[in-house]
Amino acid sequence: MSVLIVGSTALDSIKTPKSENPRLLGGSASHAAVAASFFSPVKLVGVVGDDFPKKYLQLYRRHKIDLAGLQIRAGKTFHWSGEYEVNMNHRRTLLTELGVFETFTPTLPPAYQASSFVLLANIGPSLQAHVLDQMRRPKFVVADTMDLWLNIALPDLLKLLKRLDGFVLNDSEAHQLTKEDNVFAAIRKIHKLGPKYVIIKKGSHGSVLSGPHGVFICPAYPLREVMDPTGAGDSFVGGLMGYLATARGSIDRNIRRAMIYGSVTASFCCEGFGLTRTTRITRAQINRRVNELERLTRF
Amino acid sequence: MSVLIVGSTALDSIKTPKSENPRLLGGSASHAAVAASFFSPVKLVGVVGDDFPKKYLQLYRRHKIDLAGLQIRAGKTFHWSGEYEVNMNHRRTLLTELGVFETFTPTLPPAYQASSFVLLANIGPSLQAHVLDQMRRPKFVVADTMDLWLNIALPDLLKLLKRLDGFVLNDSEAHQLTKEDNVFAAIRKIHKLGPKYVIIKKGSHGSVLSGPHGVFICPAYPLREVMDPTGAGDSFVGGLMGYLATARGSIDRNIRRAMIYGSVTASFCCEGFGLTRTTRITRAQINRRVNELERLTRF
Repeated sequence: MSVLIVGSTALDSIKTPKSENPRLLGGSASHAAVAASFFSPVKLVGVVGDDFPKKYLQLYRRHKIDLAGLQIRAGKTFHWSGEYEVNMNHRRTLLTELGVFETFTPTLPPAYQASSFVLLANIGPSLQAHVLDQMRRPKFVVADTMDLWLNIALPDLLKLLKRLDGFVLNDSEAHQLTKEDNVFAAIRKIHKLGPKYVIIKKGSHGSVLSGPHGVFICPAYPLREVMDPTGAGDSFVGGLMGYLATARGSIDRNIRRAMIYGSVTASFCCEGFGLTRTTRITRAQINRRVNELERLTRF
Repeated sequence: MSVLIVGSTALDSIKTPKSENPRLLGGSASHAAVAASFFSPVKLVGVVGDDFPKKYLQLYRRHKIDLAGLQIRAGKTFHWSGEYEVNMNHRRTLLTELGVFETFTPTLPPAYQASSFVLLANIGPSLQAHVLDQMRRPKFVVADTMDLWLNIALPDLLKLLKRLDGFVLNDSEAHQLTKEDNVFAAIRKIHKLGPKYVIIKKGSHGSVLSGPHGVFICPAYPLREVMDPTGAGDSFVGGLMGYLATARGSIDRNIRRAMIYGSVTASFCCEGFGLTRTTRITRAQINRRVNELERLTRF
């Protein structure tokens, strides 16, 4: 089955201590869609301006991403610029130009409305909800978020949480949402807000899933060097949903392995700027790292 | 086989946002020895003053810890006092009274000198080296350390590293020692300083082992509440060495499971102040959590 992915489609200018990379393909939906595309067909919902480079449309197409839901509007593509410190856990935003994203309303082509797997990648929770409003009984809906929405759109996010199967956020966002320092105490509170599956991302420390069958501690693939962590979280949840959409059997049976596939896909993302590394990998390379993670955690 | 453990034996006064606990049994060697005692006989090397409560000597004895190497000297027992913030990753030292520890020279009783497994728990690296000087061909020597020694005794520590089989430190100490933010980049540098096995502790994020058979990613046992993390790292390495000393087969064959046993023992330590929880557990309870960790990480 295919995955419907809605989120931001952007141009990212990323500065690190080692280099500067202007106007890379970025945005939560771009990262998630490319990651998911290794596992299942993807339907993309987003908006770009008429300045959006053709090569990036071609990149989407090379990954067989359905672009019927990608609006191309007069104006500028959402442009984000950020700078990482030597310790890549710290970054600051230099510039945010919303462009056509400012007035974006995600509208689903009729062919999208019956999708079973829906990933509401990081955009405002009211837009995420608007996508759900247009869907016919999806089987599995997962949303990601960011600190910004916890700050400026918490009521919308809380409403959305009741409509989700799974909710993905990082540890600092979980703390912000629940006031709990302890990840497992935070998870318990987040379940009470609605989602049956709660996934906490912890960057290089891996991630934690809590669901009806208990907790799964998911390792990060060990990397000796991180080039650019931008989009790693989006790649993680994209890989996860792509894997789930095509795996046979129940969600519960497959979701741990889906986390591992997401984790591995995110590891490739970190090894290049923007999507430059992710777009050059193969499913066989992903499988090799999954097997390796199995060896790295067995005892 | 038994484990020889040298380190600090202290009284800890621990303040948390929820309570105050004066003069608990503490010190790196106390925590490590009690942890190891669940798996193997322990020979303790340390020093206490004549104010050291009898009940703590009885506690050691209940755990069948050999006290032939514990010096009882006129004067005061090492007393440390610290305060934790709401986020237990942050603590500050309120007071350090070295007492008899100030002039401590670890002297091994003859019966200790042929020990095969040696844990140099956290004390100054020159004292750790002095213990090694008295040993006859130990089979497996592991040392722990702390930021203080990196600051004031780095040359001694670097000399010691060349004499170790395994070195255990936490992620911020690994960063301090190597200037590497990335754990795996740090590990590579630490191997070059001598130890064949490098273990990085990451608190609630688990730990990482690097050895001749590659990397092992070791999870922390999930706890919803941490009462007092003091001594968790010492319990970890104590449990690890205790398990290794009695497991059949090679170090390489057993060390991953030993990490898991250490991790579980440390989880109990966090659930009570000082050693109050650890001293009340059984090997069966430890085994149950080990089995649980197996389920929590399988995919």
